[in-house]
Amino acid sequence: MEKNAYQKLFEVPFTNVKIEDKFWAPKLKKHRETTLKVCLDKCEETGRISNFAKAGGTMKGEFEGIFFNDSDVYKVLEGIAYSLMNHPDPELEKKADEIIDLIASAQQQDGYLMTYFTLVEPDKRWTDMSKHEMYCGGHLIEAAVAYKQATGKEKLLNVARRLADHYDSMFGPGKRHWVPGHEEIELALVKLYRETGQEKYLKLAYWLLEERGHGYGKGEIWDKPDWGPKYCQDDKPIREMTDVSGHAVRAMYLYTGVADVAALIGEKEYVKALDRLWESVALRNMYITGGIGPSKYNEGFTHDYDLPNDTAYCETCASVGMVYWNHRMNMLHGDSKYADIVERAMYNGALAGVSLNGDRFFYVNPLESDGNHHRQEWYDCSCCPTQIARFIPSIGNYVYCTSEEGIWINLYIASKSTVKFNNNTVNLTQITDYPWDGKIDIIVEPEKENKFEINMRFPGWCKHAKISVNGTTVENLIINAGYIKLMKKWRRGDLITIDLDMPVERVYSNSKVKANTGKVALQRGPLVYCVEEVDNKDWSKVYVSTEAKFITEHMETLLGGATIIKIYNPGYEKPVIAVPYYAWDNREPGRMKVWLDEKRDNSDALYINVSH
Amino acid sequence: MEKNAYQKLFEVPFTNVKIEDKFWAPKLKKHRETTLKVCLDKCEETGRISNFAKAGGTMKGEFEGIFFNDSDVYKVLEGIAYSLMNHPDPELEKKADEIIDLIASAQQQDGYLMTYFTLVEPDKRWTDMSKHEMYCGGHLIEAAVAYKQATGKEKLLNVARRLADHYDSMFGPGKRHWVPGHEEIELALVKLYRETGQEKYLKLAYWLLEERGHGYGKGEIWDKPDWGPKYCQDDKPIREMTDVSGHAVRAMYLYTGVADVAALIGEKEYVKALDRLWESVALRNMYITGGIGPSKYNEGFTHDYDLPNDTAYCETCASVGMVYWNHRMNMLHGDSKYADIVERAMYNGALAGVSLNGDRFFYVNPLESDGNHHRQEWYDCSCCPTQIARFIPSIGNYVYCTSEEGIWINLYIASKSTVKFNNNTVNLTQITDYPWDGKIDIIVEPEKENKFEINMRFPGWCKHAKISVNGTTVENLIINAGYIKLMKKWRRGDLITIDLDMPVERVYSNSKVKANTGKVALQRGPLVYCVEEVDNKDWSKVYVSTEAKFITEHMETLLGGATIIKIYNPGYEKPVIAVPYYAWDNREPGRMKVWLDEKRDNSDALYINVSH
Repeated sequence: MEKNAYQKLFEVPFTNVKIEDKFWAPKLKKHRETTLKVCLDKCEETGRISNFAKAGGTMKGEFEGIFFNDSDVYKVLEGIAYSLMNHPDPELEKKADEIIDLIASAQQQDGYLMTYFTLVEPDKRWTDMSKHEMYCGGHLIEAAVAYKQATGKEKLLNVARRLADHYDSMFGPGKRHWVPGHEEIELALVKLYRETGQEKYLKLAYWLLEERGHGYGKGEIWDKPDWGPKYCQDDKPIREMTDVSGHAVRAMYLYTGVADVAALIGEKEYVKALDRLWESVALRNMYITGGIGPSKYNEGFTHDYDLPNDTAYCETCASVGMVYWNHRMNMLHGDSKYADIVERAMYNGALAGVSLNGDRFFYVNPLESDGNHHRQEWYDCSCCPTQIARFIPSIGNYVYCTSEEGIWINLYIASKSTVKFNNNTVNLTQITDYPWDGKIDIIVEPEKENKFEINMRFPGWCKHAKISVNGTTVENLIINAGYIKLMKKWRRGDLITIDLDMPVERVYSNSKVKANTGKVALQRGPLVYCVEEVDNKDWSKVYVSTEAKFITEHMETLLGGATIIKIYNPGYEKPVIAVPYYAWDNREPGRMKVWLDEKRDNSDALYINVSH
Repeated sequence: MEKNAYQKLFEVPFTNVKIEDKFWAPKLKKHRETTLKVCLDKCEETGRISNFAKAGGTMKGEFEGIFFNDSDVYKVLEGIAYSLMNHPDPELEKKADEIIDLIASAQQQDGYLMTYFTLVEPDKRWTDMSKHEMYCGGHLIEAAVAYKQATGKEKLLNVARRLADHYDSMFGPGKRHWVPGHEEIELALVKLYRETGQEKYLKLAYWLLEERGHGYGKGEIWDKPDWGPKYCQDDKPIREMTDVSGHAVRAMYLYTGVADVAALIGEKEYVKALDRLWESVALRNMYITGGIGPSKYNEGFTHDYDLPNDTAYCETCASVGMVYWNHRMNMLHGDSKYADIVERAMYNGALAGVSLNGDRFFYVNPLESDGNHHRQEWYDCSCCPTQIARFIPSIGNYVYCTSEEGIWINLYIASKSTVKFNNNTVNLTQITDYPWDGKIDIIVEPEKENKFEINMRFPGWCKHAKISVNGTTVENLIINAGYIKLMKKWRRGDLITIDLDMPVERVYSNSKVKANTGKVALQRGPLVYCVEEVDNKDWSKVYVSTEAKFITEHMETLLGGATIIKIYNPGYEKPVIAVPYYAWDNREPGRMKVWLDEKRDNSDALYINVSH
């Protein structure tokens, strides 16, 4: 197998991307100063950390909490690792080392590691595929790889390798069948393969993917008549999949792993299946926020176009999963439509998952609320807080890609970065107020002044842009698969200016989405907006006329600094106020909605101007 | 009658508005250096000027040309007067004085003045209402008032007064009936009333309006079975009018006169009729260019929603008439929807009437051409060149209005202006690249630092703006009837910044316009765009995908400096090029169209972003 032979774009790790903007940089600070601390404290308070001490025998006591609670500790460690890469912190690292020691102590002689089974049901290991054993293992692997990359320390990585070797010893061709009830191990094994160069991990990942859909799945999930194999994407082999189904987070982790494996081994049938599944998600089953999974019942999908707003489940973890998967899809194909979803999910569905203070979290992200939905400090099942803890510090991952031909700019975030490709190293500086403003200056400083491509994403939400290089119009500009291709001999100090028109846009749903009939949502740039009762006490006046005028104002002191939209409907002097969806429920409790009634006041018009 | 008692807004004459922008200022220069010269030369070459000498007896010979040719000379004189107000030119003024001498010499003892009848059919005066006698007189009056205002010289004004007195002696209550077959005299008499203060002129205008629709009309128009009284808006009394009909220019001049009279005498039934007629024009019978009158046959209207593109008549004069009328409608009501049409007609339908060099003119302005439609230097019936000659130098008229409450900014044009109202004088400086860019800085310098309103038009094409005063967000901003109301105590040097989002917009027709089924037009800011064959040799590739991306580029050397739109349709690397409609047919001959086929490439999309 040739490394990365079948993908079009390649990753630029976030460690090469120093984010220096007014939007994300303060959030990264909140993450390291508050979110990590809250998550660590809660993991301690709830016994998640002490479970490892108990399993390792250094502490007495019973297992506390839910059987897969180990995973939260791993995810927080992964978040710590990313945070240390961005911002070294010896005290935090010491804390992490202590936890790692406890984790290592809990690993069994044969490499097995999951405190629930060790402490509660040692004889039930590997008896119920629903029991998240490999799910926990996957998160351990991700944390271990990240921690090794952050600190150079191999202790956790060795634990992870031993655990993966244990899996490999038990499962695989000619050994036992296994269908992980909650996917995650597959993408984690690919990371372990990439870190160690050991092909056995990639092969095991591939084998686990191939196990699905053949009736090998057994356990609680499979026994529940309303769930069954579909719930965990085990109803058919991956190559035959056409439509997204079941639990949303599981689906995202599966597809992410499938994309990783497909890219490495060139499994074209996987790519075809992913393309079909992507259409199923992006064209028929995704909320405007990039959230997925409408149903609380299965934490997942129901049927096409079923996208209720008030009961939307839209788990935070699933939006983060959309980022993971869509970034891989972009690397497979090099098409900005995937980066559009990365951005959509990142700035809306995922970012809403954490309060502006970094200390409270949404598990569920509805698009409409009667005033009773609020972020919490923690959950019994706290996958979402720990998902945020590991996701936020890694967002730099999604800014750039490279190819043989040059550089791909996926996201616009003010930052200083170093991008290596094709024996060249290019420093890139983005200067911009994105997402509040669409103008981006990009300073290009190649080590070698070569001819190469710079491909800049033309965001899906944007239909009109101006572009110049060193102040001059670009002749023979090409737009391909949603990227603007600039090809020239780049010299140190070259300045690209891209000015993306960023009007307030009305978004309409496909008419098959019954929940949004007669409704409109507002979006500006990548941000979906919502209306909150705190700004709109007269809730009956909350609607949007087809003749509404929008005034945007950037409020430095509101919601951590945000551009608000004032909606002036004809006949009312007082505007309806809309704020970014990610920032809702950070003030006094009240009603909220994304999809607003639209009143048609222009039905007689001879001409309707629209920009789409 | 109280002067201007019934209108909401009042005029700021263009003499108080010094245009200093990159768009109009060069056009004003071309107007005075080329257009006026071409028109004067042609008026001489074609005998239009010598007809006056012949009628005055200082030259021998027969009448030359069409019976109403006198009007072209008057219109050029009016244009010269406006040009002199903007830019004194003793040589040009001397030339005008010579022509005025000839005109004066042609006036008959009783005040009558129309060289055709004097030279050809002296006994047929006042026998056929189709014969443009008062039409010519109206243009004489307009020229005379303008020339008096420009130079202080009263010679032409005295000719005009004698002519108007002649009308007044013959027509009016208890005297002869008269229905001018081509309206124009009504608005002209109002100008004469305003200049002289003589109420008899206003009363005569009102009487002439009241004459219509009672069967008094007689002459060739009325005898033509396919034309009849409807052709010249004589089929019903003004108070009963509901739908625009007949010859387009005549309709515009009539409505302009009706609006003038209604404003002065408070004739509410006239206002109601105008409101109905406005809806008929603006909502059912107007091209996207602000052009009107689809049919060559009657140079006018047919039936609602009949707006063919290739055979569109859209006489230049009628687009200018739309400016005149809609500006009056705005002054009656203070609603930006009228200023929207002023702007639309000014920047598109009217401006297309003249070549970029200022020396060639369209009479007919279709929205699609097979390549055989071109501007000409002159026409036998040359109302359109002379309409351009008098319209262009007066565009400053439409920039501001005033009211008791303050200032109304209707148009954004870089300029320095002095606006007087309510015993205050305010200097206003607009700094902007409009219409190429939507950001406008307005420096306010009041003589007295009073509290008053500044009302800024929120253009209909724009749905999203940012506004600040002295760099600070405006609290409690009000939008009323399409104007953004800023109310404060204004101090010298206050800076208003309004940033109008100016994306490329798709414009769709009401589905009742069959000609535009499946088609889209592109507009950016006030400018309608078209596609020309010279830029798009592969005409079969000219369409717009629903997924198209637009790149705009400002080309300093193209078409006198213009922002072009590059339309990137998916699947093609080479973009379709669109240029502003007003600038078409200034390069090599070829096909042109405004309404482009739209190809639906997003019918599966779950969300469609539009901004309208």
